[in-house]
Amino acid sequence: MSEVTLGSFPLGPVGAGAAGEPLCIFGTGDLGRSLGQRLLQTGYRVVYGSRRPDSCGPVPQGAQVRLIHTDAASAANLVFLCVHRDHYDFLQNVAPYLKGKVLVDLSNNLKKNIYPESNAEFLQRLVPGAAVVKGLNTLSAWALQNGQLQGKQTFICGDSAEAKQAVSEVCTRLGLLVLDRGGVGASRELEDFPLQLFPMWRLPLSIALGLSAAFFLYLLIRDVIYGYVEDGKDISFRIMIALPNKVFPIVSLVMLSLCYLPGVIAAFIQLYRGTKYRRFPDWLDCWMLCRKQIGLLALGFALIHVLYLFILPIRYSARHKFISQVVDENKTTPFYFDKTTAWGTDSLMGLGVLGFFLYVLLGISSLPSVGATLSWREFNFIQSKLGHLTLFICTAHCYIYGWNKLLRPSTYKWYTPPGYMLCLMVPSVVLVLKVILLLPCVNRTLTRIRQGWERAPPRGHPEQLKATNF
Amino acid sequence: MSEVTLGSFPLGPVGAGAAGEPLCIFGTGDLGRSLGQRLLQTGYRVVYGSRRPDSCGPVPQGAQVRLIHTDAASAANLVFLCVHRDHYDFLQNVAPYLKGKVLVDLSNNLKKNIYPESNAEFLQRLVPGAAVVKGLNTLSAWALQNGQLQGKQTFICGDSAEAKQAVSEVCTRLGLLVLDRGGVGASRELEDFPLQLFPMWRLPLSIALGLSAAFFLYLLIRDVIYGYVEDGKDISFRIMIALPNKVFPIVSLVMLSLCYLPGVIAAFIQLYRGTKYRRFPDWLDCWMLCRKQIGLLALGFALIHVLYLFILPIRYSARHKFISQVVDENKTTPFYFDKTTAWGTDSLMGLGVLGFFLYVLLGISSLPSVGATLSWREFNFIQSKLGHLTLFICTAHCYIYGWNKLLRPSTYKWYTPPGYMLCLMVPSVVLVLKVILLLPCVNRTLTRIRQGWERAPPRGHPEQLKATNF
Amino acid sequence: MSEVTLGSFPLGPVGAGAAGEPLCIFGTGDLGRSLGQRLLQTGYRVVYGSRRPDSCGPVPQGAQVRLIHTDAASAANLVFLCVHRDHYDFLQNVAPYLKGKVLVDLSNNLKKNIYPESNAEFLQRLVPGAAVVKGLNTLSAWALQNGQLQGKQTFICGDSAEAKQAVSEVCTRLGLLVLDRGGVGASRELEDFPLQLFPMWRLPLSIALGLSAAFFLYLLIRDVIYGYVEDGKDISFRIMIALPNKVFPIVSLVMLSLCYLPGVIAAFIQLYRGTKYRRFPDWLDCWMLCRKQIGLLALGFALIHVLYLFILPIRYSARHKFISQVVDENKTTPFYFDKTTAWGTDSLMGLGVLGFFLYVLLGISSLPSVGATLSWREFNFIQSKLGHLTLFICTAHCYIYGWNKLLRPSTYKWYTPPGYMLCLMVPSVVLVLKVILLLPCVNRTLTRIRQGWERAPPRGHPEQLKATNF
Repeated sequence: MSEVTLGSFPLGPVGAGAAGEPLCIFGTGDLGRSLGQRLLQTGYRVVYGSRRPDSCGPVPQGAQVRLIHTDAASAANLVFLCVHRDHYDFLQNVAPYLKGKVLVDLSNNLKKNIYPESNAEFLQRLVPGAAVVKGLNTLSAWALQNGQLQGKQTFICGDSAEAKQAVSEVCTRLGLLVLDRGGVGASRELEDFPLQLFPMWRLPLSIALGLSAAFFLYLLIRDVIYGYVEDGKDISFRIMIALPNKVFPIVSLVMLSLCYLPGVIAAFIQLYRGTKYRRFPDWLDCWMLCRKQIGLLALGFALIHVLYLFILPIRYSARHKFISQVVDENKTTPFYFDKTTAWGTDSLMGLGVLGFFLYVLLGISSLPSVGATLSWREFNFIQSKLGHLTLFICTAHCYIYGWNKLLRPSTYKWYTPPGYMLCLMVPSVVLVLKVILLLPCVNRTLTRIRQGWERAPPRGHPEQLKATNF
Repeated sequence: MSEVTLGSFPLGPVGAGAAGEPLCIFGTGDLGRSLGQRLLQTGYRVVYGSRRPDSCGPVPQGAQVRLIHTDAASAANLVFLCVHRDHYDFLQNVAPYLKGKVLVDLSNNLKKNIYPESNAEFLQRLVPGAAVVKGLNTLSAWALQNGQLQGKQTFICGDSAEAKQAVSEVCTRLGLLVLDRGGVGASRELEDFPLQLFPMWRLPLSIALGLSAAFFLYLLIRDVIYGYVEDGKDISFRIMIALPNKVFPIVSLVMLSLCYLPGVIAAFIQLYRGTKYRRFPDWLDCWMLCRKQIGLLALGFALIHVLYLFILPIRYSARHKFISQVVDENKTTPFYFDKTTAWGTDSLMGLGVLGFFLYVLLGISSLPSVGATLSWREFNFIQSKLGHLTLFICTAHCYIYGWNKLLRPSTYKWYTPPGYMLCLMVPSVVLVLKVILLLPCVNRTLTRIRQGWERAPPRGHPEQLKATNF
Repeated sequence: MSEVTLGSFPLGPVGAGAAGEPLCIFGTGDLGRSLGQRLLQTGYRVVYGSRRPDSCGPVPQGAQVRLIHTDAASAANLVFLCVHRDHYDFLQNVAPYLKGKVLVDLSNNLKKNIYPESNAEFLQRLVPGAAVVKGLNTLSAWALQNGQLQGKQTFICGDSAEAKQAVSEVCTRLGLLVLDRGGVGASRELEDFPLQLFPMWRLPLSIALGLSAAFFLYLLIRDVIYGYVEDGKDISFRIMIALPNKVFPIVSLVMLSLCYLPGVIAAFIQLYRGTKYRRFPDWLDCWMLCRKQIGLLALGFALIHVLYLFILPIRYSARHKFISQVVDENKTTPFYFDKTTAWGTDSLMGLGVLGFFLYVLLGISSLPSVGATLSWREFNFIQSKLGHLTLFICTAHCYIYGWNKLLRPSTYKWYTPPGYMLCLMVPSVVLVLKVILLLPCVNRTLTRIRQGWERAPPRGHPEQLKATNF
């Protein structure tokens, strides 16, 4: 055991300041153990406090001792509380020993708003003599054990600036980036963070599901109900594959264009304003922040479309239709080989394959570890140049799909346009706007604006003609 | 060259302690150079020792000098030995200069157990005056060059606590998390680490291969040999695609359910015991630790199944069967369009596509860089909620596959049930157990237990009614 | 606001040295703000200098004050310049206040060679009294905000060693690995770094595109033009799918073998030389460095091949051909079920699926985050063992494709061999050479050489019989 001798070793832990004084952890559960392990590895000394120091689970190798709470509290100035809020009442007895100490509340709840006050405020009321700091509660025991802390952001809040400074020092040494959110009143916000479930995905998912539902209903009426009402045919089995295989590519294309629309809008706003130094409207900011999620959803829908497509020839109905075609119309159309149709379907599928391949490339470059290896210019090249190319190819794919259906009256059942016509509107608009932005004269102005040039001098400050920053 | 002036610069390297004294590296091969490079970047000064200081390869820019071993050893207190064990004999001459120094043995062997004693023990015997520390041997030259050290765990062992402390200080500054494994006797264990080949994958792979072999044999007998024996048909070509396309989905589904079975068992054990504070049996712990690997293997098998499926209509035998169907039974079954069959096959494939899509989502969230961006709750949502949904959909997919074959006598060749019936047992059991756990009354108790509540007070400590940790 | 009190807090920022003196940032744009935020999180104090301290955008919470440039410059010894080169002229007024200070130039240009001198040299001329250091320009505002700095390499250059030391100290604390590139004359090189677009991909991409173009032309002549000239058939629609579906797998297989060829050549060179201590020729080094890119391109082409393949049965021309077959040759070939053909096509496809699956495995293990979890031996196992297995299976797949076409005269249109025969040459050579290397006697020698053994003693140094490093 090297830990015993660690204290006697003159060099002490790495870095100044942490040398003498140990940190205390209350609670020997998963979180307490993982935190202690990590603190020990970073060079701190750790003391555990437990209600039953003899019978509780194992503490990490290197932790000095397991003590009852009061003794552990006396040994350290910084106490990490790794205990459920339900079990905070033991602190009433320990409170006198915590006077003047920094008490870090790491607890989380299972749901929002189940208690009238936040855990940290409750704790501060229980132990008024201690400086309570809420923080580190976004770290799970698993994350603490597996060494992925470097560069992660963590939030702290508390009323004592000195206490927060002491905690943030420990966090920094753990590799975390600390963001101060103010007084202990912000603790409810901090406690709600780990309870959030994909906050960035909510809006994109709602859009995707809304679009899917709308198009599904629309196509259900056009394809299935129309057939039943007008011809009396029951083709309800199409609900499982044929219909989704129309809905998914439509939604995918719309989502992909929604991914590139805000960038185009932002460029036009900058051109109109003649400066990049004014904030975009909030809805645009919000939209731009979730472009990645929108794009990934578009990729997901495209993947399902591809899977459905490949499954088509194995379906019973496809085989049945095929056989009927052969036997019934024994000497008719299929025998005249229509070169235009061959070119059409082959182009349709060729473009589809190419578009999907680029889609997948975009998706792979969105993986955090791949994106991290790209320089800014490379990332920009992929997400902007390649992205618009993907949008163009997928839009062309969709246009070719409909090229020979446009003028057929049977296309407009009940006078409604087919789904793919509706879905082509958004990408077409995006592409036209993008082409306008790429015109040399427009592009030149935009580039200058993005480098800090302003068309009109800022009003009220006529002397400041140039922007001094990026 | 800035290095010459570095020494004269008053500020010295970052942090205290490392300022004055250089570190010594013996060996100018890939590993020695990469280690030196990294140490220099971290702010250390580095001296190289070499047998032929003039003719050996280039050392990284910034390393102070290349010296013969004895001079280099004199210059530093910490010597990293980046030399193959086969070439250790030169150390006998250098030994007097290494007295009282810390000697870090980074060497690895090509295979286990080729020498009677571990490299570090051999080294300690060669240079008895030095404090040998085994460590850093899990780092490759490649990893040292490419900056992925942050948060990586590394093991050290050695008899001198002070030597280990000095080494662990350097490691910590390199960003590594050091785990002390005790005396130099543990060095064999440390030297075996880098020789391990996917230790976590052994058990899951064995299960997967065992299941595949068993089901392959079973289906070979039922499908190919039965046909040959009873009808005299030679359909051995099915071994290449048709048979694997039954075996792979079966094994995939069984593996997926094996991935969720231990969690369900653990929940029932906790419910039965009324506490979460007692360790699970070892086999369960072991099983739970390799759930990720089991799940990824299930995904791999599912992917092969999907690829085989899409290839089906292109096969010669499929085309042949299809054409025969058309020509032979010219006016029979296929012309009556069976809506139930259409619904059946379309549901089968629709569920399959959906299940595979969720499978892929699970796989993507298992990528280390994606998993690291998820909060604990999000990770849990994906792996638990989405995972069980995937299992449910895939099981339903399999049930639909067999729905109309259940009561056909031809299904039970030689009185054996078909493969998919056998494979449905495990996922069905898992799903039923999971449904029981989701019943409100059971679920409530389980949640309380997982928050630290215990049904019975710990015997022998009647005063300790509550658990104080997570 | 905790920042106000931060200064009064006795502990100061983490680590020694950074305590008292703040860092200054000129420019409050995206980059300036992100850099300041990161420096604050790392424990530094930050002062912003701006032309219009009152009207410029928000600075990160915690930055001390916003001042006009001259005051900010006076407050710090290290000034980060986050301003476009176009706006450097304001520095002429600030120059007197920058005397003796370190001025870090982070600027980049939009294109190469648009200015006669590099930004840093221009800056040094503008502010001759300051010690200009070029650096950190590879970091984007986005990278600074999102915490992926740990272990990243960054380059600096400048004429003053002390100034570079001060900057590199800040960089090291940010987690960056600093590489010194010499005097300010190297700044053009540094400024060109962020303008590079996938430098490692250029060669592999050129090879892939060159091969694709060559094979496409070759097959266009053989398949489309031959048919038109000799039989007068217009099958130009095949350009969209049928032709690419031959070109892509051919190029994929050639690229995959090009990925393993340099390793084999290197082994033979080492065997021939009898030592591993002599550098490989430059072309081989260069080739070996882009193996990963070559392999990923091969995977990309294989993916497109697979997508094209799955789309085949849905094509109009495939359906047409199929129906013609049924109706025209109503009682002919297809009804005799040819077992050899069934075995052949099924083996072809089975091997294809297996090969593609291994391809995907190789691709996944190339993801940075997955690769980082592998030990060196595991990585080696996947990329070498599994890689050669993939090459073997894909080559076999290609051989089976052509097995029954070899002796048919119709295969050799215009006396040219079909594409797949040409493409088989490279992988066959690689596999044969690899088999030679795996022969026990050859393999043993190679292993010894790779462990440092040399056949002949180094000439001129007869006393140095053994290599002392890996």
